[in-house]
Amino acid sequence: MTTLKGNLMFGQSGGPTSVINASAAGVFIEALKHSDVIEKVYGAANGIVGILNEKFYDIGQEDPEELEMLKYTPSSSLGSCRYKLADVNKDDTDYQRLLEVFRKYNIRYFLYNGGNDSMDTCNKISKFLQKSGYECRVMGVPKTIDNDLFGTDHCPGFASAAKYIATTTMEVFLDARVYDTGMICVIEIMGRHAGWLTAATRLACEKGCGPDLIYLPEVPFDINEMITDVTRIYEKNKKVIIAVSEGVQTKDGLFIPELVAGDDVSVDSFGHKQLGGTAVVLADILKKETGAKVRGIELSLMQRCASHCASQTDIDESFLAGQTAVIKAIEGLTDYMIGFERAPGKEYKCDIELIPLNDVANTEKKVPRDWINAAGNFVTEDFVDYALPLIQNETKQQIVDGLPRFANLKKVLV
Amino acid sequence: MTTLKGNLMFGQSGGPTSVINASAAGVFIEALKHSDVIEKVYGAANGIVGILNEKFYDIGQEDPEELEMLKYTPSSSLGSCRYKLADVNKDDTDYQRLLEVFRKYNIRYFLYNGGNDSMDTCNKISKFLQKSGYECRVMGVPKTIDNDLFGTDHCPGFASAAKYIATTTMEVFLDARVYDTGMICVIEIMGRHAGWLTAATRLACEKGCGPDLIYLPEVPFDINEMITDVTRIYEKNKKVIIAVSEGVQTKDGLFIPELVAGDDVSVDSFGHKQLGGTAVVLADILKKETGAKVRGIELSLMQRCASHCASQTDIDESFLAGQTAVIKAIEGLTDYMIGFERAPGKEYKCDIELIPLNDVANTEKKVPRDWINAAGNFVTEDFVDYALPLIQNETKQQIVDGLPRFANLKKVLV
Repeated sequence: MTTLKGNLMFGQSGGPTSVINASAAGVFIEALKHSDVIEKVYGAANGIVGILNEKFYDIGQEDPEELEMLKYTPSSSLGSCRYKLADVNKDDTDYQRLLEVFRKYNIRYFLYNGGNDSMDTCNKISKFLQKSGYECRVMGVPKTIDNDLFGTDHCPGFASAAKYIATTTMEVFLDARVYDTGMICVIEIMGRHAGWLTAATRLACEKGCGPDLIYLPEVPFDINEMITDVTRIYEKNKKVIIAVSEGVQTKDGLFIPELVAGDDVSVDSFGHKQLGGTAVVLADILKKETGAKVRGIELSLMQRCASHCASQTDIDESFLAGQTAVIKAIEGLTDYMIGFERAPGKEYKCDIELIPLNDVANTEKKVPRDWINAAGNFVTEDFVDYALPLIQNETKQQIVDGLPRFANLKKVLV
Repeated sequence: MTTLKGNLMFGQSGGPTSVINASAAGVFIEALKHSDVIEKVYGAANGIVGILNEKFYDIGQEDPEELEMLKYTPSSSLGSCRYKLADVNKDDTDYQRLLEVFRKYNIRYFLYNGGNDSMDTCNKISKFLQKSGYECRVMGVPKTIDNDLFGTDHCPGFASAAKYIATTTMEVFLDARVYDTGMICVIEIMGRHAGWLTAATRLACEKGCGPDLIYLPEVPFDINEMITDVTRIYEKNKKVIIAVSEGVQTKDGLFIPELVAGDDVSVDSFGHKQLGGTAVVLADILKKETGAKVRGIELSLMQRCASHCASQTDIDESFLAGQTAVIKAIEGLTDYMIGFERAPGKEYKCDIELIPLNDVANTEKKVPRDWINAAGNFVTEDFVDYALPLIQNETKQQIVDGLPRFANLKKVLV
């Protein structure tokens, strides 16, 4: 193995999570230990947008205690982006610019933290740098509450969101049945194409406080079947809790808000439809159909930023992913994403698994069909066996004056 | 003081809180100690509705450990109601029926847990029983996240909601500024006439993660002024966080959803308008006016049931309120609500204060005008001094398998 001396650039991309900064902490704290190889550690402001604009922070100037605090600080502390690189064969302007910046600052380690789109970005940049004969080790650090990255047992960020969702579902379950009158409650959960987060409500069932019906995007959504399901339970119990993914689609490929809004749904820079409003639309429909009191609840941004309810297991693994990416890159590896492989046996244990970026990019991992019941309206015990170990252990976040203590970075621009 | 021997009836009424069951625990655990005076301890299913229907539980049959767990179990474990008693001079049917049930079960202690409407109910029942010559000691146990009960420094339930709201605001603040693009975020918080809960977002400002603008129902809401305020901040910072109470009204007395829905807003059994949708309506308006990306977030039921983020100070005080109600009633007092009086001095300390039910019933305590800035779009440091001590100390809720451990009551019907 040859030692590659130079500087390190780390960036955060895509939607944030409760624990994305724990990976940043892992990268920074580990990289700063290797000053014999890595002279400067940089954090890109807003991912590759910051690199393109030469806007990045000198992490070596941060207080080590504050870097430690990143473990317990939600959202992307460096700032994120949703910038999509063009096809290099059509327009290589951005790639040339990145190469220019990398050369100028002698970036020899590029670590990028994100989900599917970000791993694709990471992969494209690496391929271009290789073609250009510029030696740079590129590693992907996984992050997504959606838990849909290929090749890894699970993704950093998922477990904390799942813990918040399951906890909140239990609490809402109790709240939504206090009156002697009927009540239907629709809880809308994030997840564009994969139902992992919505499935997390199933964990609340283990405590007797879970939803009656769970609808994931993996199964075509039939609104009439849902009305039949809800009505049946409502007539029996007078209380119904429904967990539904924002991403459920009818067999004709329509999202729920589209049933009302038509083509009026807005689209982000990756061409993904901006959803939300699913709970409100379904609540309106159920109100008309059943005559019951119906409440729609959207867990909105809270599900991805509720660091006060994070899983310490998730925090530790997120840190480990960042740390390992640095170690492996220094060892000479490139073009891998850090993943987790679950060891067999009853006790939960995950080992690091390196997954080629080529394999990860743009492949989505969905909830297996046989973890969803035949009727497509509930999740099986298999999911519980899978997810329950991930939400164990409570965050060690410091509370000062009754409120969370977040990291204070100086963010000294280079 | 004469000893009054008989049975005790406790009921929960109105919207639940994270800690309402802590008061139930206080009543039950204390009452069960006094078997020389109180033979049977009953819990009414769904408040007075349960009494009218002779549906109540024998609390003596519950496992003491589960009664202890009530401290950490959100929502009304006995069930609640929103039943309004008629004017006794017009229709005394319900009152006669209550008297009949009280006689039949020898109820000599009636403790009722709730907010303004419930204290009114409590007061009316007590007056009727007195007029009928039936000796019964009646005590109100305060509960409301709205914090709007007269005569007490604060209300059990408020602090836990405030802690959740401030914590969540801090988290959302970070999440809503990750991208390099502009973002406006409207957070809608409960509070029909009083802005205490919305003001709680001000606590997040102490940590540098609070809203730019706070709108309470205490000040008439001017939509054009809000647009001006938001636009000014947006042009400067590209990020704006707005906290708004569901109860803000224009100077013409219209709630925000009414600006769009007209008279279509539904009404509950007390004639209170069912609000919600304020964030969505304001987000739509701001989107049109600014062209920015705007997200509306409703903290919905979560703000009143998030026991995982409760204030232990609140839990302890809620328990104390229930406990004291029993002790005072046994001592011979009647027709009081348990309140809190804050001791002067820098260190937080509250003493019990007894407030005549007559004074409490239907009087609403609002946020003082001079705790709101002159422009009516922010909250002053006075509120921080008031509220910060209340949210101190984190819940001792047990977590089992990564999820909250709630009380399991047998609920043996009498």
